[in-house]
Amino acid sequence: MIKFSINKTFFLQALNATKRAISSKNAIPILSSLKIEVNSQSLTLTGSNGQISIENTISTEENDAGLLITNSGSILLEANFFINIVSSLPDISLDFEEIEQHQIVLKSGKSEITLKGKDVEQYPRLQDVTTTKPLVLDTKLLKTIISETAFAASTQESRPILTGVHLTLTEHKEFKSVATDSHRMSQRKLTLDSATDNFDVVIPSRSLREFSAVFTDEIKTVEVFFSNSQILFRSENISFYARLLEGNYPDTDRLLVNNFETEAVFNTNALRYAMERAYLISNASQNGTVKLEISNNQITAHVNSPEVGKVNEELDTESLSGNDLTISFNPTYLIESLKALKSETVKIRFVSPIRPFTLTPGDNSENFIQLITPVRTN
Amino acid sequence: MIKFSINKTFFLQALNATKRAISSKNAIPILSSLKIEVNSQSLTLTGSNGQISIENTISTEENDAGLLITNSGSILLEANFFINIVSSLPDISLDFEEIEQHQIVLKSGKSEITLKGKDVEQYPRLQDVTTTKPLVLDTKLLKTIISETAFAASTQESRPILTGVHLTLTEHKEFKSVATDSHRMSQRKLTLDSATDNFDVVIPSRSLREFSAVFTDEIKTVEVFFSNSQILFRSENISFYARLLEGNYPDTDRLLVNNFETEAVFNTNALRYAMERAYLISNASQNGTVKLEISNNQITAHVNSPEVGKVNEELDTESLSGNDLTISFNPTYLIESLKALKSETVKIRFVSPIRPFTLTPGDNSENFIQLITPVRTN
Repeated sequence: MIKFSINKTFFLQALNATKRAISSKNAIPILSSLKIEVNSQSLTLTGSNGQISIENTISTEENDAGLLITNSGSILLEANFFINIVSSLPDISLDFEEIEQHQIVLKSGKSEITLKGKDVEQYPRLQDVTTTKPLVLDTKLLKTIISETAFAASTQESRPILTGVHLTLTEHKEFKSVATDSHRMSQRKLTLDSATDNFDVVIPSRSLREFSAVFTDEIKTVEVFFSNSQILFRSENISFYARLLEGNYPDTDRLLVNNFETEAVFNTNALRYAMERAYLISNASQNGTVKLEISNNQITAHVNSPEVGKVNEELDTESLSGNDLTISFNPTYLIESLKALKSETVKIRFVSPIRPFTLTPGDNSENFIQLITPVRTN
Repeated sequence: MIKFSINKTFFLQALNATKRAISSKNAIPILSSLKIEVNSQSLTLTGSNGQISIENTISTEENDAGLLITNSGSILLEANFFINIVSSLPDISLDFEEIEQHQIVLKSGKSEITLKGKDVEQYPRLQDVTTTKPLVLDTKLLKTIISETAFAASTQESRPILTGVHLTLTEHKEFKSVATDSHRMSQRKLTLDSATDNFDVVIPSRSLREFSAVFTDEIKTVEVFFSNSQILFRSENISFYARLLEGNYPDTDRLLVNNFETEAVFNTNALRYAMERAYLISNASQNGTVKLEISNNQITAHVNSPEVGKVNEELDTESLSGNDLTISFNPTYLIESLKALKSETVKIRFVSPIRPFTLTPGDNSENFIQLITPVRTN
């Protein structure tokens, strides 16, 4: 039966990271549990919601953890409840001891708390992913790519495949991340330094956002592995499994065109704030669109919500060239696109009032392109 | 028709303070409006939810406000919407101009936003309070007294009078604030420096908490006035009206007794954290109580929730004297009492397992006493 002592703060950090995979309202009740497994060298915390699973391993060799293992074993504990109890303990360290009938006793300072657990046999087995030939990525770069694309995925289950982000590796070096909800698209490309096996997978955008929350910037690199049904992101202490989406992702390359009629470069934040003002008024009516008018070398934004009021605003540009044009679109899409852009300026290229327009970083610093489909108005 | 310009940040501060009185889900729809009244010297913002009303006046003589009035008038605007629009404006200042048909135009930078308003005649009249012979209080002290007592008021409407805080002035100098929900009571007394008219009023605890949020610590003193149905708190710029509760407040003095059998002094925070641990376990069961056992010059806390687990904890005391005793109570009441205490230590006096126990600051620094009724167990 388990017996160990550990530093409370270190234990809580690992518990809170693992908790990100655990939902208290899961269709499978046992998944509200946290699994604790202890062997002679380490302690592993496991949480899962069926879509993502997190394993967090603390080694006895980790100095800050103060982990002293007296006895091995494994047990299930109600995750939220257990974590609240641990965070309330009075001392900087705690003793964890399993007693009869899947009960545990936590001792810290003068406090002694007994909790009921469950037999670890009740917990489902997580599918294994073979860990050979990893794709090694810089964690920060991978998280940037996720923040640049995952937001554009659909949040509606009518076409489940669009709730995912399409990650591919072609020619062993050409990495691409794409998401679209059929109204807008975001695509980021990257050429890897070293060649590895090609892949073509679709990962729920929500799982990727959880990955970004769990893998802090202190984790320099992440190893990525694939099985037929899962992707595994692994660091020294954390294994993060996400289930893949099944089905064929639509061909997004055909959406990208090279011709355009009008090109404007804006300060990213100034355009975003102008669109946020437009959104406040447009959102109050059913129409919900903003109209951009380009004429006489000047761009103005217009919103008219008969019930509420209207906006007219002249937009500053860094440069503007090409034909005059009037185009209407949902300002939310442009706001979210601009938030995803890290560059100071943004280049927007228009083809026609009924064709999608493209956004790229004004400094062309990244292989990053976004598309937004306009709304037809009369 | 209104026309003025103003500093955006200063205007927003006043708008957000006034908004605290405005609910978007009011039974009287017009109360979701903000009233703006402009005369030659100042601009007044008014918000009300029927229970509390706030008037915020900005003078042209206020340097930071940058208020320049061209034309007087008054108008109603949808409060939340208007405040969101103002906070989105691009420039540090804004021009506000009323045009035909109760519409206004906001100009800031290159942005021009037109909003629909309403005729000010639709707004209900706030009851007047005669402002002679004010009771002048230190704002910080009044807010401290509110935080020490208002939490103990009832949140249930079964006895409406108990949702209030009983404020009285007797013998022209003896100020007292009391609240009870019939399970616990909190009372704070204060002798005023100068004599004023006696009063006896009951104010909804929620209104007093809003007062504390609106009157920042920068406002040194507050003038207090009464009418038959309202209390008015007034500073240089803000008038805060709260409706009084009707009915007789129960006699709470009879609850206070001087005899006791057991007295213990604790470190306030250490006792609070121990009770928070106890609460985590007690709250998981229906029983929901913690048991204190005083024997052999030692105090231990016990919780037993058969479904979940149990707690045993030896409590450190600064001093302990009197008879042995076992008493059970809801730990939430003790946690909230201890949060209201600003002193480093707390003195708790027990009479018997079935009589309320009292809490006072360990250093006797304030005229502050709290009562908590125990729960009878077998």
